[in-house]
Amino acid sequence: MNSDIDPSGAVARWWATAVSHMEPGVVEIRGRPVQELIGEIDLVSMIWLMLRGDLPTGPKAALLQAALVAGVDHGPQAPSIAIARMAATCGIGLNGAVASGVNALGDAHGGAGQQCVELLDEVLALEAAGADLEEAVGQAIAAGPRYVPGFGHRFHPIDPRRDPLITLAEKAVTEGVVAGEHLRAGKAIEEHLRRTRSRPVPMNIDGATAIIYAELGFPAPLARGLFVLSRSIGILAHAWEESRQGTRNKGPIPRAILPARLDQ
Amino acid sequence: MNSDIDPSGAVARWWATAVSHMEPGVVEIRGRPVQELIGEIDLVSMIWLMLRGDLPTGPKAALLQAALVAGVDHGPQAPSIAIARMAATCGIGLNGAVASGVNALGDAHGGAGQQCVELLDEVLALEAAGADLEEAVGQAIAAGPRYVPGFGHRFHPIDPRRDPLITLAEKAVTEGVVAGEHLRAGKAIEEHLRRTRSRPVPMNIDGATAIIYAELGFPAPLARGLFVLSRSIGILAHAWEESRQGTRNKGPIPRAILPARLDQ
Amino acid sequence: MNSDIDPSGAVARWWATAVSHMEPGVVEIRGRPVQELIGEIDLVSMIWLMLRGDLPTGPKAALLQAALVAGVDHGPQAPSIAIARMAATCGIGLNGAVASGVNALGDAHGGAGQQCVELLDEVLALEAAGADLEEAVGQAIAAGPRYVPGFGHRFHPIDPRRDPLITLAEKAVTEGVVAGEHLRAGKAIEEHLRRTRSRPVPMNIDGATAIIYAELGFPAPLARGLFVLSRSIGILAHAWEESRQGTRNKGPIPRAILPARLDQ
Amino acid sequence: MNSDIDPSGAVARWWATAVSHMEPGVVEIRGRPVQELIGEIDLVSMIWLMLRGDLPTGPKAALLQAALVAGVDHGPQAPSIAIARMAATCGIGLNGAVASGVNALGDAHGGAGQQCVELLDEVLALEAAGADLEEAVGQAIAAGPRYVPGFGHRFHPIDPRRDPLITLAEKAVTEGVVAGEHLRAGKAIEEHLRRTRSRPVPMNIDGATAIIYAELGFPAPLARGLFVLSRSIGILAHAWEESRQGTRNKGPIPRAILPARLDQ
Repeated sequence: MNSDIDPSGAVARWWATAVSHMEPGVVEIRGRPVQELIGEIDLVSMIWLMLRGDLPTGPKAALLQAALVAGVDHGPQAPSIAIARMAATCGIGLNGAVASGVNALGDAHGGAGQQCVELLDEVLALEAAGADLEEAVGQAIAAGPRYVPGFGHRFHPIDPRRDPLITLAEKAVTEGVVAGEHLRAGKAIEEHLRRTRSRPVPMNIDGATAIIYAELGFPAPLARGLFVLSRSIGILAHAWEESRQGTRNKGPIPRAILPARLDQ
Repeated sequence: MNSDIDPSGAVARWWATAVSHMEPGVVEIRGRPVQELIGEIDLVSMIWLMLRGDLPTGPKAALLQAALVAGVDHGPQAPSIAIARMAATCGIGLNGAVASGVNALGDAHGGAGQQCVELLDEVLALEAAGADLEEAVGQAIAAGPRYVPGFGHRFHPIDPRRDPLITLAEKAVTEGVVAGEHLRAGKAIEEHLRRTRSRPVPMNIDGATAIIYAELGFPAPLARGLFVLSRSIGILAHAWEESRQGTRNKGPIPRAILPARLDQ
Repeated sequence: MNSDIDPSGAVARWWATAVSHMEPGVVEIRGRPVQELIGEIDLVSMIWLMLRGDLPTGPKAALLQAALVAGVDHGPQAPSIAIARMAATCGIGLNGAVASGVNALGDAHGGAGQQCVELLDEVLALEAAGADLEEAVGQAIAAGPRYVPGFGHRFHPIDPRRDPLITLAEKAVTEGVVAGEHLRAGKAIEEHLRRTRSRPVPMNIDGATAIIYAELGFPAPLARGLFVLSRSIGILAHAWEESRQGTRNKGPIPRAILPARLDQ
Repeated sequence: MNSDIDPSGAVARWWATAVSHMEPGVVEIRGRPVQELIGEIDLVSMIWLMLRGDLPTGPKAALLQAALVAGVDHGPQAPSIAIARMAATCGIGLNGAVASGVNALGDAHGGAGQQCVELLDEVLALEAAGADLEEAVGQAIAAGPRYVPGFGHRFHPIDPRRDPLITLAEKAVTEGVVAGEHLRAGKAIEEHLRRTRSRPVPMNIDGATAIIYAELGFPAPLARGLFVLSRSIGILAHAWEESRQGTRNKGPIPRAILPARLDQ
């Protein structure tokens, strides 16, 4: 139907995609008619299908699901959540409030998962190049920033999400679902930090989920992408709760408290 | 721990929430320790729990899941998808690309689901006030805008996502999972449009999912909110695909085509 | 150069614009070569040219400039400012931080200027239809929401930006720069609120600038648009200051204060 | 007034700022009552005051103004502009449309100005450390990415904005307004690229404005920040034009053209 106004196909190709295909009466997702997916496929498998083009095995989908559930929310002290709650009082719709929160999941917030996968990959690459694991960890951490991505938490001495996620990852290794290399690297980093830092630097949600995403074969940027999907649920729930409380133009602190002056 | 710097509790109350609770070593979601949810609860039930505070029955979760799967993607002709793909070439991270796409799910895009639930509610309210269903539909449509939210599609004479969703909703009514009132109203609107409009105005994805969300008891704004979660998956998948193709600063059309001039 | 891949011109027309024109070696703004504007035109006249297609007289540009200067900032209690400051600590670049703040200038925040112009237009329309001004104001306010857009402030009993702006508008009327109809309507609303409300409802920044934008002939949606440009300056300055203070993932309140629990 | 609920002042200090101060009846910008600025100060000087805390001399303000005017628009082939136009058709308000466009001014789009200032600084640092200018340029470029930030344009063999900006910068050096070091470095990079690249790599808008911003003493991240303010004007003008054309949910290409399929 494009032949008259796009005879060379150059315009259609400018927007070419393997993710989905649409024509009148047809919607295909990764080559599958959408009507064969609706009611047939669970949401986590749909996420996997969209990002990778194939369907996960049941145990892999279950592991991905656990990581997605774990990252959903951490309360209004997270800037993504506070931003969405304030935005929801400004008259911009839940889409705008969620977008405002998601936008804040940058390198220093939701981006830690991506950086943690890169760190795990680096540790494994150094090991593959001949270093022993302990050396590889030391080198990779020394080459990075002071904040080791995926480790340390300003609120939790121990992050309560770490143990259930790592236990599930260990079980998946035992059962042959995943190979366990990134898990091994992540635990070595954790041990290294325990030995070398004076304050506790526990594996946090970004670290534990990064291990799972990497074990499942997701490349580093998708650790951030998957966290975005997971945290969007929390962002939406908080924006929704706030929008029903009737505050307009909610500021960050009660109105009676005025920000202090800094010197010019 | 707040007593020294927030003795009255006013600052803590400014950010009070029932959605989650966090203190050192503790993360609770709707009053439940997060470690009891990880690996135990599926992602769709987590969405329900976050938004409503309780857990869905299995059949309700399944119905919600079908609607969430159905809305995931409709290709790059949807502005939300095209925006995310272009943003992904501008160097802003997947979080920024997803936020840019989600932000566009406004009143004329993802907002149709919200408006459709309001329309269904209005039809049922008019009926409850004594109108017969046919009159109620006519009145409710006449009072609204030319675009009937949830109906009509610029690409599809028949939306392939309608039948499987409506079939699942009908089955849920038969099995007593949901009451069927919003489904009845939605089908009456569809029939009314078939009789009164010269061009086909099929029930679209916003209409079919609005019926399901309303049957499950979600208020109108959450029809938009749930669509945001669903479409975020498609937005992420497209942003990710685009980001790997290496284009920088992708414009909307091939570079050789320059936008035409409009008169001043 | 488009003839091969866009022979009908349909693709070029899809993006047709009168705002600017670009071809190799050429950038035209509203039909004027950009090199004739650089160094020749002031920034406020450029804003006018872009939005309207012609250049303002000097006195009109001066009046527009005063309104744009007035709206620049109101400190971190404004959600747009607080959001941008928090976003700036999340690793998303100043563009992302500014976008996050601007996004929050919705119907309940920056949108009040747009609504105020609509209210002023409504008052004048009722008057033109035969009501006297006092009646017109009463009717227009009664038909609207409890918050009269452009009037009332949660912090200021008297908004210090009102007097200098209204004085400049009055001077512009006296000198024949603008007609003064919207100013007359705005002052009548102010007087009406003074007589009928028990608490002070002073004309605020949105009201005073709405009068000026309307006097200059900008349609209502551009009252919001111009406020967006003005407030962007404040948003940028705050995001920049915050980004240099070294906080990562800044939450809305000091870390020692944990949000209170609401009942489920 | 904060003593009851913030006795230690910790909450007020959490939001401390030197940019502005607000208390009932008072708005101060950089320590100056806002009513002393309205009608007294031009918009460009307000931008400078907000970002730096002092007022510019007239010639410095004029140079800054020229750079801000130059970057306003480059038409819908720029993703920021196309995104804003599409967003404006989705029902999200001009604030949402502008935010969507601004968000895309990331590392690969509006971020080039920031990177160019960093490159200029690096050239001057290498020179200060003993290299001659030609060596310093070669080293700095070799150390960076293939795209030299601030140079090269996919549309223009010669960017028409370069000459007027560089002429103004040269005049400012001659008149002692700025020192001319960054201008010298920028021209040396331009000359180096002319000699060493086979295809033209002209100084572009990001390069020419980066030179000016750096000469005026703005640090690198503010080259991006100032471009955000400048381009926001173009983004708003395009969003406004699009919003009046009545398209709903505008896709990137005419509806008759369907995106091509890529292989899975």
